Amino acid sequence: MGRTFILYSRATTSPNFSLQSLYSYGRLDLVCRCVLSALWLSEKIRQDTQIIVSLNGGPNPPVAIRFDGTLSNVEPSEQSIAFLIKKALFKAKDGDWHSIQKGLAVSKKPFQELIRESRNVFVLDPSGKQIEAQHFESPTFVLGDNKGLPSGELKFALRKGEAISLGKKVYLASSVISVVNWILDKNA
Amino acid sequence: MGRTFILYSRATTSPNFSLQSLYSYGRLDLVCRCVLSALWLSEKIRQDTQIIVSLNGGPNPPVAIRFDGTLSNVEPSEQSIAFLIKKALFKAKDGDWHSIQKGLAVSKKPFQELIRESRNVFVLDPSGKQIEAQHFESPTFVLGDNKGLPSGELKFALRKGEAISLGKKVYLASSVISVVNWILDKNA
Repeated sequence: MGRTFILYSRATTSPNFSLQSLYSYGRLDLVCRCVLSALWLSEKIRQDTQIIVSLNGGPNPPVAIRFDGTLSNVEPSEQSIAFLIKKALFKAKDGDWHSIQKGLAVSKKPFQELIRESRNVFVLDPSGKQIEAQHFESPTFVLGDNKGLPSGELKFALRKGEAISLGKKVYLASSVISVVNWILDKNA
Repeated sequence: MGRTFILYSRATTSPNFSLQSLYSYGRLDLVCRCVLSALWLSEKIRQDTQIIVSLNGGPNPPVAIRFDGTLSNVEPSEQSIAFLIKKALFKAKDGDWHSIQKGLAVSKKPFQELIRESRNVFVLDPSGKQIEAQHFESPTFVLGDNKGLPSGELKFALRKGEAISLGKKVYLASSVISVVNWILDKNA
């Protein structure tokens, strides 16, 4: 089943970050792990999946980077994803999607515009409806980084979509994506 | 519910690896992500969980490193886990567990001995029984790195335990751990 993840992140929008200390650039490490969890099976990429990361850190926010299942020749490691983010940040210029390479595109679209353009939106939130009680058709799942969604963005997303929950515990964003992918696979 | 993960890995057993290119040391990056998936919730550590990584790469195999929920002051990033692995590898000397710091211990125990010392062993394998049909009590989950368990180790583990499966797809080891943790939380 086709599926999209949208991750709200506070990571840097400068391409001049160091690949050696991703953690210190607004948790770029977390962003990279979310891309891995969204797109990779063991040794292969999910053809039917995409993840858009909305970067909202300085100096040039917002930047949206879209990874999809047509990516190829990429190692499943934090650093190789970070390298793609770096390439994309160098090319961020306006609100259209610009292709960087197969499976990778960049835009200056803000988070709310990404949501506005999505259908079948589900917002991961501990207070939402249990995910297993839900039916999904080409869904878009929205989640935040380690600090969660800012309240304005959360409200906006909930006007467009519905809150769903994995339970009472608050999980790592990358673990949330792994679990959602597995639940959708099981029900496919 | 208390739970243990045992990861079989082909990663290096030399402490002289570079924190900047974990991927190239037998997939140490993957080992670090498995530790994160096993122990971390969003911004906090699971008290009731441990993960033992069995490193079987050169030059000094095997080395077992045990991380548990009493770890503290560790960032949830690949590199901070890799730094702990490096510290542990410097201290690997014999078949007993030696504490390195709170929540971190090292031993030269081989994989099969780790299995022999475990109870309620479940081996993640696509051909196993569906995980949701299973009842767990203080379980130990055994899984392999990107190349899976070597056939001799798999057979050994299956003599001691039972094969369970997340379905037909083969997932990243770190995603497997995230899903297993979530299923156990749900049934707790």
